[in-house]
Amino acid sequence: MVPESVLRSITVRTESRILLLVLDGLGGLPVGGRTELEAAAHPNLDRLACEGACGLTHPISPGITPGSGPSHLALFGYDPLKHEIGRGVLEALGVGLEMTPQDVAARGNFATLKNGVISDRRAGRISTERNRELCERLQREIPSIGGATVIIKHGKEHRFTVMLRRENLYGNIADADPQKNGERPVPPRALDAASEETAALFGQFIQRATEVLADCAPANTVLLRGFAKYPTIPTMEDLFKLHPAAIAAYPMYRGLARLVGMEVLATGETLEDQVVTLREHFEAHDFFYFHVKKTDSYGEDGNFDAKVEVIEHFDRVLPSILAVEPDVVVVTGDHSTPALLKSHSWHPNPFLLWSPYVRRDDVRRFTEAECARGALGQFAAVDAMPLMLAHALKLEKFGA
Amino acid sequence: MVPESVLRSITVRTESRILLLVLDGLGGLPVGGRTELEAAAHPNLDRLACEGACGLTHPISPGITPGSGPSHLALFGYDPLKHEIGRGVLEALGVGLEMTPQDVAARGNFATLKNGVISDRRAGRISTERNRELCERLQREIPSIGGATVIIKHGKEHRFTVMLRRENLYGNIADADPQKNGERPVPPRALDAASEETAALFGQFIQRATEVLADCAPANTVLLRGFAKYPTIPTMEDLFKLHPAAIAAYPMYRGLARLVGMEVLATGETLEDQVVTLREHFEAHDFFYFHVKKTDSYGEDGNFDAKVEVIEHFDRVLPSILAVEPDVVVVTGDHSTPALLKSHSWHPNPFLLWSPYVRRDDVRRFTEAECARGALGQFAAVDAMPLMLAHALKLEKFGA
Repeated sequence: MVPESVLRSITVRTESRILLLVLDGLGGLPVGGRTELEAAAHPNLDRLACEGACGLTHPISPGITPGSGPSHLALFGYDPLKHEIGRGVLEALGVGLEMTPQDVAARGNFATLKNGVISDRRAGRISTERNRELCERLQREIPSIGGATVIIKHGKEHRFTVMLRRENLYGNIADADPQKNGERPVPPRALDAASEETAALFGQFIQRATEVLADCAPANTVLLRGFAKYPTIPTMEDLFKLHPAAIAAYPMYRGLARLVGMEVLATGETLEDQVVTLREHFEAHDFFYFHVKKTDSYGEDGNFDAKVEVIEHFDRVLPSILAVEPDVVVVTGDHSTPALLKSHSWHPNPFLLWSPYVRRDDVRRFTEAECARGALGQFAAVDAMPLMLAHALKLEKFGA
Repeated sequence: MVPESVLRSITVRTESRILLLVLDGLGGLPVGGRTELEAAAHPNLDRLACEGACGLTHPISPGITPGSGPSHLALFGYDPLKHEIGRGVLEALGVGLEMTPQDVAARGNFATLKNGVISDRRAGRISTERNRELCERLQREIPSIGGATVIIKHGKEHRFTVMLRRENLYGNIADADPQKNGERPVPPRALDAASEETAALFGQFIQRATEVLADCAPANTVLLRGFAKYPTIPTMEDLFKLHPAAIAAYPMYRGLARLVGMEVLATGETLEDQVVTLREHFEAHDFFYFHVKKTDSYGEDGNFDAKVEVIEHFDRVLPSILAVEPDVVVVTGDHSTPALLKSHSWHPNPFLLWSPYVRRDDVRRFTEAECARGALGQFAAVDAMPLMLAHALKLEKFGA
């Protein structure tokens, strides 16, 4: 990986268009001898692999399993160890809150306060419907704290997200959560001087929320954790001179795309909707991040067959995607999510790069094992962006 | 490689057990068309390679030949360019001295002082027996210097090791060695302010030793070099939350293991003894470093056939090693020692990882050439530890 300053100095704007197709959690592990990619029929991907060059990418470093935040940052060309996205921010993006650079977000739990201690950190796992009612009440009763706008959004069961929006807020704050039942509430505690006022504001929010919720037991208080300020990340426009767009159905990925300055296009819930969006906006942008979520979802569920199905469905749709005629196409995952493990894993991502300027290899099927012996070798995911830019002839020479 | 702070934050303690089998200097070069690994029959290693995934590791960086210190540090998961082990320390560990964090060690030569110059830097290569007598005399006559305990241990021929033990000693000291015959003795010279007192103490030691040895010509003085303080390295417990044990017959490797906080188990001199030790302690630890020295020794001797023999012997013993049923097994070298070169070399190490969670490859024989096309690719040896931890399910996700 070259420093951002070097990249910035050699990127040039051109007419060529890059299409980054991310099948979330694509890579797998063998079940009954075959991985999800090996079990799936995907003739169109295989044809693309024949014409292109393949390899494997490590999202962070060998052995390290990434969350969605760092794995996407790497794919977008940002060092995921340098640019950290706090849990509160990722949560806010995940529930579809639009964050601004001023915001500090936190993950919240409704909880039960009894005789001065937190008797249940999850308020008996109240229903999502009840959660929504309580969030609406909190939002109505506490529109602001100390000049900061309060923004609340319910999640599932006892979970919600809260953001404070005002200038000079900072998120270096320890969790306001006793971590186990039977302990006294813990106020938010600043971990640096700059965050002291923000910690105090979140403390006031908890106090006000506890007053508002007085008659709502078991959900009669709130715990907050994962405080994080919206990160300052250079835009893709700034670094790469791209005018990028995101076509993603799920809030978190739309949020991650916005974080690096992509225009997030309105789209539908199906793959076919996403293709329509791609076709409609293809002239207006020179980089497209196209995200497919369900490979990861079924991997997390341990549903091998359904993950295979999603890959096959994607493969059927692929010709209509390629019909827009991008100059560079990449098909890859952000991380692996083997159904065998029911979770993200550390295994490197199958990576397929198509362009008229690749050195072809003898990969004939787009699978983990064939990618392992592809012409691109194994490399850090953060280098995918320079590779895409290079193949799109968007990089000038480094040095004379 | 991710920073140590990141590793520390994602490691978790679990019941799973990792077995790291290090055949010192394993990798080789072809003699008569085949490397040592290619010439050896090792059906059990081959079976493990079929079931696992293979690759090649670079101890430091391509082209760099490592000493045993840095190559082992890398295998243990420590950046060998960040954590340096001074020569004196390695020498002390090699002769079996137990160092404490207070100690500063140096390599010593008995030498001949004549008419004010060093006429023979090796004192005519006195016998090891004579060396032992002289070391005992020095130890008896100079038990301490300026409040520092003096610890002396003979080596082979004219070589010995000396350590000073006391608080506030430092080892940034230039060699007290004229480097060639016919030059005047050179006193130890501190290279920073903190080391000045220690340099003076070593200077007094040389003076006292020269008095004690006055009637011992040709061994009538000593030269000291490679001054080094015991390094401060975070323990494997601290970094990786492991409770590690070392099963190694040779002092240097036992010392290196102790340096990173391993418990060094008492064991015998043979491979079979080491297996008994492994079996007896298998329940008590979750990481085992099992070291086989002779592959390297015969490599250094240029004895191709004997190195082949050691590999075949190891292969015969392998089933009894695997009978303890570790969750993750790695077989690799710390560096290559091709018999052809009679020395350590820069060639990457064959690396075999077995776990239920590997992506298998088509490696069928455990050789350098087959490892070169294994699923793990080529990677830095320092990443072997995150890979072992990952496959043992001892790493949490990085980032949300």
